[in-house]
Formats: sequence, C-alpha cells, structure tokens
Amino acid sequence: MKDINIILMGFGAVGKGVAKSISIKKDKIQKEYGVNLKLVAVADSSTSAISQNGLDEELLIETKETKGKLANYPEFGSDTNGEDVLDAVDYDLLVEATPTNIVDGEPAKSLTLKAFTGGKDVVTSNKGHLALFFSQMKKEAKSNNVEFKFEASVGGAMPIINFAEETLPSSSISSIIGILNGTTNYILSRMTTEGSSYKNTLEESQQLGIAETDPTQDVEGVDAACKTVILANSLLGIDATYGDVEVEGISKITSEAIELAKKEGYLIKLIAEVSQDILKVSPRLVKKNSPYAVEGTLNMATIKTDLADEVTVVGKGAGSIETASAMLTDIINIIKSKY
Amino acid sequence: MKDINIILMGFGAVGKGVAKSISIKKDKIQKEYGVNLKLVAVADSSTSAISQNGLDEELLIETKETKGKLANYPEFGSDTNGEDVLDAVDYDLLVEATPTNIVDGEPAKSLTLKAFTGGKDVVTSNKGHLALFFSQMKKEAKSNNVEFKFEASVGGAMPIINFAEETLPSSSISSIIGILNGTTNYILSRMTTEGSSYKNTLEESQQLGIAETDPTQDVEGVDAACKTVILANSLLGIDATYGDVEVEGISKITSEAIELAKKEGYLIKLIAEVSQDILKVSPRLVKKNSPYAVEGTLNMATIKTDLADEVTVVGKGAGSIETASAMLTDIINIIKSKY
Repeated sequence: MKDINIILMGFGAVGKGVAKSISIKKDKIQKEYGVNLKLVAVADSSTSAISQNGLDEELLIETKETKGKLANYPEFGSDTNGEDVLDAVDYDLLVEATPTNIVDGEPAKSLTLKAFTGGKDVVTSNKGHLALFFSQMKKEAKSNNVEFKFEASVGGAMPIINFAEETLPSSSISSIIGILNGTTNYILSRMTTEGSSYKNTLEESQQLGIAETDPTQDVEGVDAACKTVILANSLLGIDATYGDVEVEGISKITSEAIELAKKEGYLIKLIAEVSQDILKVSPRLVKKNSPYAVEGTLNMATIKTDLADEVTVVGKGAGSIETASAMLTDIINIIKSKY
Repeated sequence: MKDINIILMGFGAVGKGVAKSISIKKDKIQKEYGVNLKLVAVADSSTSAISQNGLDEELLIETKETKGKLANYPEFGSDTNGEDVLDAVDYDLLVEATPTNIVDGEPAKSLTLKAFTGGKDVVTSNKGHLALFFSQMKKEAKSNNVEFKFEASVGGAMPIINFAEETLPSSSISSIIGILNGTTNYILSRMTTEGSSYKNTLEESQQLGIAETDPTQDVEGVDAACKTVILANSLLGIDATYGDVEVEGISKITSEAIELAKKEGYLIKLIAEVSQDILKVSPRLVKKNSPYAVEGTLNMATIKTDLADEVTVVGKGAGSIETASAMLTDIINIIKSKY
C-alpha cells in the first residue's frame, strides 16, 4: 500500500487533533482510498520527533501532554525545528498548524513556500499568510503544480470552502454573510440570554477558556476579518488583503443595546460580509429565528447565489478534533485527486 | 467541443427550471468544463419535442407556457411520449423530472431502468422510485456502470447528499435530523407568528400556492418520509424503504399547543430523523435560536458526525430554478468525473 508521508508542523490543539484524527481514521482511509497516512515528522514550537518509518500518533500526544516537548519522544525526539524539519525527512504532504501571525504570516509562510518549492502539497489551518498574501501563495502553489488547501482556516469544522466549490458549482456566488468567530458569538449570546455586561461576560468567557487572556484578536474582529479575506479571495476571486477589510469589534456593545434589539425581535451579532463591493466585519442586527440566530460558539455562513438562492451552513468554528476533521477532509480530497 | 446530449423527461416547474438553468449557464459550462449541454428531447406528460441537433431552451419554455403542449414546438414537436422518447434520439444523459409517485414509482422507475440498460447516466429530482426501490435502483446503476444522482430529490436547493459526501469524508455520520418539507414548515411558522388555527393557515397557504389543493402528501408527512428514506439509504447505508418510516403529520397540531411551546422557548416543527435505529417523521419541540428554528418554506438538516460534531445546512426546499440548480450541480459533477 502506498504511504502518504506527512510532516505536521505545529502541535497545539489543532496539531494534536490532526494526530488524533489520523489515529482514529487511518484504517478506514486505508480501506476506502488504498493509502496509508504516515506521520514522518511532527514539530512543536521548538523541537520535533522525526522518523522516516513513521511515528505513533497516540505516543506523540502523550509525549507532548506529559513531557511538554516532542524532543522527549522516545528514540526519535530531537531539537530540530522550523524549516530544518522539512529537510530532515522525505515527505509528500505538509500539514501546517502553527499559530496565526497577522503581522508577517510567519512561520507558516516560509514553511509553506519551502514545501511548494519542493513539490509538496500543503494543508493548513493557518489564517495569517492567507489573509496577508493570498494571491502570492496561490500563485506559488500553481507554478509548482501542487495542491494547497485551507478549509480549516475559515470556520473550523464548518465546511465553507469545499461546500461552495463542491456542492454549488452550478451557481455563481454574489455574496457571503456570516458569523465567523465563535468567541464573540458566545459573548453576544450570553449577554442576550443573561442580560449581563460586556465586561462581565468577557471575564466569564476567559474563565471558561472560550476567550483568550488577551482577547483582542477575537473581540476586535481581527480573526473574523482574516477569514473574510480568505473567503473573498477563494470564493469570489477578489484580490484582497487584510488591510482591505473594514473592521469593528464588539467591545462597545452594551447590554442596553442588546435589550433594545431583543424587544424588536432582533439579535446583535458580529457579522462578516463579503461581496465585490463590501469587505466588512461589524456588529449588526439580525432577525430572531433566521439562519443568523445561531447561539454559543457556533459559526455560520449564508451564501447568496444566482440559481440556488441562499444556502446556509452552520458548524463548530473551533475545537481540536473538529478543526482537524476539516484538515483531514482536505487531505482526503488531495488523495482522491492525486493518488 | 463535445456535446452532452440530454433527454429531459417531465416539463413542469422543475423541468422548466432545468431548461432555464441550462439556458443561463451553458456558456459558462462550455468555458469551464469544455462541454456543450444540448437538449435533444424534452417530454411533458403526453407529448414531446425531439431533435438530434438540439432544441432551444427558451422556445421550449415559451411553447409550453403559451401553447400548453410540447407537441406545438415548431418543426420538432411530436406525439411521442413516455419510454418511446428514449428510443427516438441518441443521448448521453437522462434528466428525469416527472412527478413523484409513491404507489409504484412510475414512470420514473421504468424510464430510469431503461436509461441504465442503455448505458446512460441519470439525474433525477423524483422521490417515488427512490423511496420505494432505492437499493434496486442503485444496484442497476452500478451493474450498468453508469452514474445515478439525485441531490434535488431531498431538500431541493439545499445541498445535503453532495454536502455529506464531498465536505465530510473525514467523518462518519451517525444521524441526520432535519426539516425536509417546506409546506409544513411554512404552515407551522405562520401558526406560530400569527396564532392562527391549522385549518385557516392551511387554507391561506393553499391560496398562496404554497400548499397544494390536495395537501395530504405534505401535511401527513409522506413527502418528508420519502426524503427520510433516501437519506437513510444514501448517507447511512440503511437498506430501508418507504414503509419502514414511522410517520405522523401536522394536521392535529393546535394553535394552543404552539402557544404553550412558545411560552417555554420552544417551537413545534415537523422533524425527520434518520439513524441506524430510527426512521421517523413527527412534530417535535425544538429550541428557539437553534439551527432547527428556520422559518417559512426553508429546509434544514443537521448531520451528526464523529469528528466534525454537528454540521447544519439550510436552503430552499423547493422552487423551479432552485431545485433545477441542484440537478445542474449533479450534471456538472458527472461531467467532472466522466468527460
């Protein structure tokens, strides 16, 4: 059986989810697609585990969780890190799950370009390099004749890119309007049901681990704006970058405003809008009992088309195994088209 | 450029939508996929228009709307009908849009089997033969090595079958719970917002053309049960038929029951459930502001999976051009895989 040799860069929540997903699904994938998914190198932020004969997914997760660094992986742990990992072993596919960096897109950008140059396919969950350099990344993938897939970068387990491409090819898309950030949707949902203030709800969300200690990327709309740019480029062919998005976050939303909206049958949501004329993230009123009225950390997106009218998809915008499932779908789609 | 010769059987709302969709999209399809969609025969319930050189989509629609029968199509109108149409012309693909018949699945069943035997691919919007003879139809398609696609049969323009197969291949599906009938969802939504009785709301829906003169198929859950069977077979591999579904319609729902549910934060919806243990259509309570709370004639389905957790899709369950767009997506997917 053909091995698909995989390097996995980044071993936080998403990276560990990828290892777990491969562990759960590798037998099924062998049976259905006739290939064996083999992790030949996995790197965290400073160390790695590398073996051309393959690493054990469960042992990788256990090593990271109990011993902190992949350098401690039995026999094959090492201090090799960053781009050097890509030179340390033969591979077919880079699975890139390093943290999003909205300043310069690194290390995702350099890792990805190096993989492209080497003729390797890339699957990513990262938003930074896509939001900043989308057209360059796509061009480099094309000129090296490799696959570049990024379903997990927008909406986690909510399928939006494959959804639009595979289930709506008969229609032309005119706009996408959606809730692309789970943390802010959780905060606004809680403020609506509890009548609590923004400040108190944010603190509660931080205690629950739903909002980060520095919540800026989520609450100021940065994360949603990155996803807006990725959808604009990938589904509407708009050559835009992060700076082109008009962004307003939720930190000025008061419980009074939410109460007032509620009385009129509306909810306040952080809405991303993508069309040829508009790239915008802002708090907006949506009707109760509309597809926009999803609660908690859910993400949703309504795609407006010419023939199919409006189609909406809803799913978990975050979560380790959920986001990894979107990356595994990308991997399977590459296998289906190439192997 | 390669012609894809198409026979279109059935020229009601959906059939006319197919002709219209081809008219709108044929240039785009030529450009993107390098094939020319050519209608070589189109049949209504008793007559047809047939020409190996191709028929004009707009003239077909105009003929039907102004002169009643396709026999009146200039030069190529004829009294040929039913299975004889399939013998009258060379073709590659049967697009089958005759009315659903839940008694014996005809004429869809015979037309489809004849096409299979002739080595032709089939795209259908019909539920009858699928709900009654799913496994037989699939087996015949396979043994004749042809494609058989039926996205439009469940949920109209709401992509559910392609959605599950193309965007969730990494996950295993454990259940599907959804609203699969637009007419009943419209009636229940109106009863909820207006506080009106079932009888009055049904009459109003009939006046608006949303409910049919004989509303039995919709209000007694027959239509939703057919779709339940199709999802059970196609997405969960359950060898079930129409008689296996436990069905209860909405005709006994009172405005008092809806009011009571509303006070507790719930809505009453006609819910279809599909899992290895359950095949059921019945009125159930769903939470407000959940993905199940869609209004009007919308359809929705929540797919429960192992890795991606719950993913929901919402779309127009009916409509001429909307339903046709799902058939055109099936046609494009056949083109992508075969031509």
